[in-house]
Amino acid sequence: MYSFKNDYSEGVHPNILEALSRSNMIQMEGYGEDGLSNEAKTLIKKELKDNSVDIHFFSGGTQTNLTAIGSFLRPHEAVISAETGHILVHETGAIEATGHKVIGVDKKLGKLSSEDIEAVVKLHGDEHMVKPKLVYLSNPTELGTIYSDEELKSIRDVCDRSGLILYMDGARMGSALMSSENDLTLESINRYCDAFYIGGTKNGALLGEVLIIKKENLKTDFRYLMKQRGALLAKGRLIGIQFKELFTDNLFYNLASHANRMADLLREGIKDSGHEFDLETSTNQLFPIMPIQIIEVLEKKFSFYRWQSIDADRSVIRLVTSWATNEEAVKEFIELLKSN
Amino acid sequence: MYSFKNDYSEGVHPNILEALSRSNMIQMEGYGEDGLSNEAKTLIKKELKDNSVDIHFFSGGTQTNLTAIGSFLRPHEAVISAETGHILVHETGAIEATGHKVIGVDKKLGKLSSEDIEAVVKLHGDEHMVKPKLVYLSNPTELGTIYSDEELKSIRDVCDRSGLILYMDGARMGSALMSSENDLTLESINRYCDAFYIGGTKNGALLGEVLIIKKENLKTDFRYLMKQRGALLAKGRLIGIQFKELFTDNLFYNLASHANRMADLLREGIKDSGHEFDLETSTNQLFPIMPIQIIEVLEKKFSFYRWQSIDADRSVIRLVTSWATNEEAVKEFIELLKSN
Amino acid sequence: MYSFKNDYSEGVHPNILEALSRSNMIQMEGYGEDGLSNEAKTLIKKELKDNSVDIHFFSGGTQTNLTAIGSFLRPHEAVISAETGHILVHETGAIEATGHKVIGVDKKLGKLSSEDIEAVVKLHGDEHMVKPKLVYLSNPTELGTIYSDEELKSIRDVCDRSGLILYMDGARMGSALMSSENDLTLESINRYCDAFYIGGTKNGALLGEVLIIKKENLKTDFRYLMKQRGALLAKGRLIGIQFKELFTDNLFYNLASHANRMADLLREGIKDSGHEFDLETSTNQLFPIMPIQIIEVLEKKFSFYRWQSIDADRSVIRLVTSWATNEEAVKEFIELLKSN
Amino acid sequence: MYSFKNDYSEGVHPNILEALSRSNMIQMEGYGEDGLSNEAKTLIKKELKDNSVDIHFFSGGTQTNLTAIGSFLRPHEAVISAETGHILVHETGAIEATGHKVIGVDKKLGKLSSEDIEAVVKLHGDEHMVKPKLVYLSNPTELGTIYSDEELKSIRDVCDRSGLILYMDGARMGSALMSSENDLTLESINRYCDAFYIGGTKNGALLGEVLIIKKENLKTDFRYLMKQRGALLAKGRLIGIQFKELFTDNLFYNLASHANRMADLLREGIKDSGHEFDLETSTNQLFPIMPIQIIEVLEKKFSFYRWQSIDADRSVIRLVTSWATNEEAVKEFIELLKSN
Repeated sequence: MYSFKNDYSEGVHPNILEALSRSNMIQMEGYGEDGLSNEAKTLIKKELKDNSVDIHFFSGGTQTNLTAIGSFLRPHEAVISAETGHILVHETGAIEATGHKVIGVDKKLGKLSSEDIEAVVKLHGDEHMVKPKLVYLSNPTELGTIYSDEELKSIRDVCDRSGLILYMDGARMGSALMSSENDLTLESINRYCDAFYIGGTKNGALLGEVLIIKKENLKTDFRYLMKQRGALLAKGRLIGIQFKELFTDNLFYNLASHANRMADLLREGIKDSGHEFDLETSTNQLFPIMPIQIIEVLEKKFSFYRWQSIDADRSVIRLVTSWATNEEAVKEFIELLKSN
Repeated sequence: MYSFKNDYSEGVHPNILEALSRSNMIQMEGYGEDGLSNEAKTLIKKELKDNSVDIHFFSGGTQTNLTAIGSFLRPHEAVISAETGHILVHETGAIEATGHKVIGVDKKLGKLSSEDIEAVVKLHGDEHMVKPKLVYLSNPTELGTIYSDEELKSIRDVCDRSGLILYMDGARMGSALMSSENDLTLESINRYCDAFYIGGTKNGALLGEVLIIKKENLKTDFRYLMKQRGALLAKGRLIGIQFKELFTDNLFYNLASHANRMADLLREGIKDSGHEFDLETSTNQLFPIMPIQIIEVLEKKFSFYRWQSIDADRSVIRLVTSWATNEEAVKEFIELLKSN
Repeated sequence: MYSFKNDYSEGVHPNILEALSRSNMIQMEGYGEDGLSNEAKTLIKKELKDNSVDIHFFSGGTQTNLTAIGSFLRPHEAVISAETGHILVHETGAIEATGHKVIGVDKKLGKLSSEDIEAVVKLHGDEHMVKPKLVYLSNPTELGTIYSDEELKSIRDVCDRSGLILYMDGARMGSALMSSENDLTLESINRYCDAFYIGGTKNGALLGEVLIIKKENLKTDFRYLMKQRGALLAKGRLIGIQFKELFTDNLFYNLASHANRMADLLREGIKDSGHEFDLETSTNQLFPIMPIQIIEVLEKKFSFYRWQSIDADRSVIRLVTSWATNEEAVKEFIELLKSN
Repeated sequence: MYSFKNDYSEGVHPNILEALSRSNMIQMEGYGEDGLSNEAKTLIKKELKDNSVDIHFFSGGTQTNLTAIGSFLRPHEAVISAETGHILVHETGAIEATGHKVIGVDKKLGKLSSEDIEAVVKLHGDEHMVKPKLVYLSNPTELGTIYSDEELKSIRDVCDRSGLILYMDGARMGSALMSSENDLTLESINRYCDAFYIGGTKNGALLGEVLIIKKENLKTDFRYLMKQRGALLAKGRLIGIQFKELFTDNLFYNLASHANRMADLLREGIKDSGHEFDLETSTNQLFPIMPIQIIEVLEKKFSFYRWQSIDADRSVIRLVTSWATNEEAVKEFIELLKSN
């Protein structure tokens, strides 16, 4: 049984395992103040062409989101998110548990527009309502779609006009950046956003997300907030080492490219087999519509999620590829599909 | 410069690194529902001789404490802790950030007694004060002291009488259990406590603590609370693998024994050199009193914390040994001490 | 300028003012444990024909909602509410500030149905999402509509099946109960709900809402939670006295009847003048659609809210009547309307 | 049975009752934006000789403290308070419930000194501990003692040096200001503090405290925070009217003077009878030490709290006088005491 359920089914890229091994018995400072973590930060700043940012390592996406957002906002301030946003749906109310409302905007493709944001701001006029203060974007979104430079610029503009913080969840950032339709870079994302994170867990790390804080007043005392939320690892080196490897010799990009290439193969194979998609994506998540009959055949050899029922006979399924996806497995999947 | 600053300066025990390597490319379920995590849980239940407990893996101690305590209490309920308790001093108000007061009891040796607990309960009589509901013990304490079976039994009794939850922070549990003065076991601790955690990070793991919940009504929906606090790792296998190794062939106990043996060597050497201790301990933390003059000599070759100033000429220092402490380094330290 | 903006523009019913005066210099126990508060509780229990309930006095609706809901739920549990629910829109994220997500259901008439609730429960399946646990109804709703006995019974049934707490916000409960379309009573509401509150502020009191808790396990330590949220008044008698008066000689019902009768007059007058309503209501809130031109004329003599723009020429306005509404003012409003 | 238990046993000063009556049927704006509330604010600003402050009305002290402190601090910031501070002991963890630790300093007389504050700041050095950010003083303290101009000035200085917010709880502010030993005024208190509140409930109001915010950056969006905590009353006029009366013709000061004069009478009578005090106070709270035998006699005619047991034969009792204390009752108390 081969899994296309998600992009965290395997362990870690071998380069990272080797790096862990190499440095294993060297004594280092705790809580992320070690030399390897610092080297990783330097590499990332170089990638962003921005030495002014603050960089912090986290062990997972929910932890990053809740610590960042919970730190950036005052109690009455709220988040604007697409209804499909990870923080709104799949983090068990983690943001609300820090005291903040998440205002959902219903969007077919999982993407917010500057108009959506403006409408929410306009609707919230006085102290009987929360004050919208932070815009939460995921790129790619939870539906695999991505933001263009123009879209992001336009959102930045509305944030400037309305005094909003622009925050991007980049759990699968690698896949967005390597998408054939992408025209953003880490550098431009850093230019537009006040803070954002780059995911490691779903792109070849054992665990680890890296948060970049650009806006000056959001930086203050941030390590206090991390400690308070349980996010400072005693052996912080563990995440530092991984991001050092990921940002050495383009490993981060190469792994994401592999994931996207495997997704491309699947996409083409599915199209060739005559199936349609619920949603067009150019990243490592695919949402084809399949007859239940065929789904049942596929499920004998592959695991994946039935995403949403269309009718009695058809369902959307979700297929996810990753840095570790086996090309043979992809080909087998397509062959099985074509023979049915 | 050799460090006696803490027990998390090195990486991970080689057995664990090998196990990570061995299982690396095998696809597994996410969020701790993989086979290796389940094997680790089975090994721990066997150790506790108790199949009824719920077991959850965390990435660090603060995260474990805040998730457990925040989940166990209603909003008006409070924690009783020694004034030196880790949650009270060194977790940046993590418990308060979940909404709960920590009531401190001032104790020279860092240990609560059943009388202390009773006194706190008696003092809190009506709805104008918080309701003490959970007793927080660390074993060993932050000062390296440990609880005896009799002391723990007596605390259990007062908890039963007063309807209190008994919770133990075992960040350095291995060192307590391997202390020459210890008469507790994981089995007896599980018998006395409603919930407790066993630390991996400070005993040879890269990261990882394992929480055991025995009391039935504390188990409900616990994974929801973990997810909400950002404590469910996508690649949960990472911690499962480590505890599987630690509880195979007594590795957990052997590593702690090494740490304690290194501490014993240091302790004897320091005593032989004519220095006294601020506090007698039998675990891997030592608190000798040293002339500043000697401290300055030692600091040229070794790093450690100046813990507390005694007077202009003397200070308490803290020395910590670990699973990875080099016996040669210990000997050098003692020689340097003796030659001064 | 006469105001139809809301039902809290005047002070307090004269009976209450007299009762305050009468008891003013008598020494009483603090924090709601005085004799007059106890008398009020006895009267309310009699009204409910239920001696088993716990009764608590609050100074406002937001305070009641946040204290009750924040007390009833564990951190990962969430509220189901209509999108127009007061807690979702107009309480500045008060529920989220206690850590809980409010799941909105989009409803034209502001009313939840049992099917809506079931659908939300079904959608929330695992620990990556919050756990729906409490159903929040307002009766009348924020749009002036009311629940029937049958509807409430059906919601009770789904709550029983799904283990949900049923909570009713009765800020304007009097107006609902006195509506010509109503078939509920305080007695039947108490039978269906686990907890609910009856509003005084909007029905003739200076301030004051009374919370009734029927479900046994929700009662525990509730006064602790009230104190913690700042809801226990030192001179608790102030609210006790008011509810004693309101539940003496049907004052509560009579005041609401007057408000409804004034609304009926307005409704008929508006219909007679040929204007339509955005929403049919039978309580003290009216939502007629008016030409802007006429609105501007009315605004010279009366104050009210422009509720929602329809198009360039028309807007929905909101008119609210109360226990204190002057019949002459109503007649003048209608005359002015008819003459335009 | 005459009560010396507290200063909130009676209702409200007749002037206020009359003012309520006078304005009762006038329609006014809701939520504290009415004319009478504005008049009250103007009177208070005049008293402070400071037009720049923001003024907000609350219904009780706990609500004021939790809303103000919860609004002023970021999540990792903590409060410094005397161990006897009301927020630390008698508000059911209300501050912790907003997420903030209260650091207690053990003080015999319930008063913090600048040295205490400096010591706490010094002890909190890095991100593993909370960051002390707000100094909480009560004046008078919970033990009836008061701060002098010099003491408060010295505390202001340390706040300036350490970037701390200075906040004063003035639940019984009137009694402090009218104390024979007092050399502060509302004007000077406003000069030293960043925010403080003046209590009405314990000085002749039905309910009501008035918060003054002087420091500019603490003012932002404060009404949002009030609404979120349930502190905005729909009929906000209720508190406005009361403070308007209290700050007309020195009523506020006169009522406090009466309370203090009654306390003086009691104090002299007790001293004359040969009894000592646990604590010297010059405000409306007295803490005499009495033989149990005499206490039992007194308890037949008067109610008061047994504060703290001294030994088997003696106890400290607490006697509180108020604006409403009957001079006859005081005389009877003293006679009864002298005759025993």
